[in-house]
Amino acid sequence: MQTTEQQPPKLKLDSKLILPFVASTTNVFTTMVKLTPQIGKPHLKESIETSYDVSGVIGFSGEVIGSVVVSFQFESAKKLVNGLMGMEIDPESSDFSDAIGEIANMIAGNAKKDLGLTANIAVPTVIIGKGHVIGRLSGVPCVVIPCKTDVGEFAVEVNIKPTA
Amino acid sequence: MQTTEQQPPKLKLDSKLILPFVASTTNVFTTMVKLTPQIGKPHLKESIETSYDVSGVIGFSGEVIGSVVVSFQFESAKKLVNGLMGMEIDPESSDFSDAIGEIANMIAGNAKKDLGLTANIAVPTVIIGKGHVIGRLSGVPCVVIPCKTDVGEFAVEVNIKPTA
Repeated sequence: MQTTEQQPPKLKLDSKLILPFVASTTNVFTTMVKLTPQIGKPHLKESIETSYDVSGVIGFSGEVIGSVVVSFQFESAKKLVNGLMGMEIDPESSDFSDAIGEIANMIAGNAKKDLGLTANIAVPTVIIGKGHVIGRLSGVPCVVIPCKTDVGEFAVEVNIKPTA
Repeated sequence: MQTTEQQPPKLKLDSKLILPFVASTTNVFTTMVKLTPQIGKPHLKESIETSYDVSGVIGFSGEVIGSVVVSFQFESAKKLVNGLMGMEIDPESSDFSDAIGEIANMIAGNAKKDLGLTANIAVPTVIIGKGHVIGRLSGVPCVVIPCKTDVGEFAVEVNIKPTA
């Protein structure tokens, strides 16, 4: 059967852009957060999937554009931040946002070196809200790296592409 | 009474960094969205304030670092996107995220020219989730520009600082 409907160009998962984030997530969690994450299979996001409660967003510009989002369930985020800081942290405080932002920043910064391209990364933005999702943009593939630790699940969503 | 408690350095609202966003918000809404916004008084965000449902986040890097977030209530976002596109758009589709991202992108891109500094802006990230808030980071002032239009309220949160 022939179809006359125009399909948008198929977006591809480029492993050269994804593997650095798998490595840096493992690295940052193991060395800084002192939790060994189990990394699931990275896959292209076709629809709105799991929703999260706390996200750290890092924008990329330069030879790589887009963003990387590290998203947590609320209980995991709280346990993670309390563990990192060695004390109970108020989730409405800037200390809480700073800790989540810093985790996202370390993952993005660590991966950036291995992309083989010159990229600038922005200061993190932290979003807090039960059950939010990251909207897909057309034209930039969104790859989800699902992760699990002893304090709960989280995901790294890599939403970047080279400019050249 | 003397206090020995150490206070963090007071963050200041730098109008040279804020006024370009007031102007670009008015400009983008009036010319592109065809809605005249009423702009409220910009103020420093001291705590988590109004929550929103749909946010477009733009990361800055270069001589200006941080991010700018354009946040909407869900009903306003839907009316806005449907009005812009001239048809009903599924909020789970990439068309919806693209439209919200593009509004944030135009506001940031338009303001960038008038900051008097060289900044790179990232591709937008769009967050969808009822009642989310943007976490404050310490060390970067977060200025809220409250806005109102005929289709509802929104806010531009400017969370940037010069690097030099």
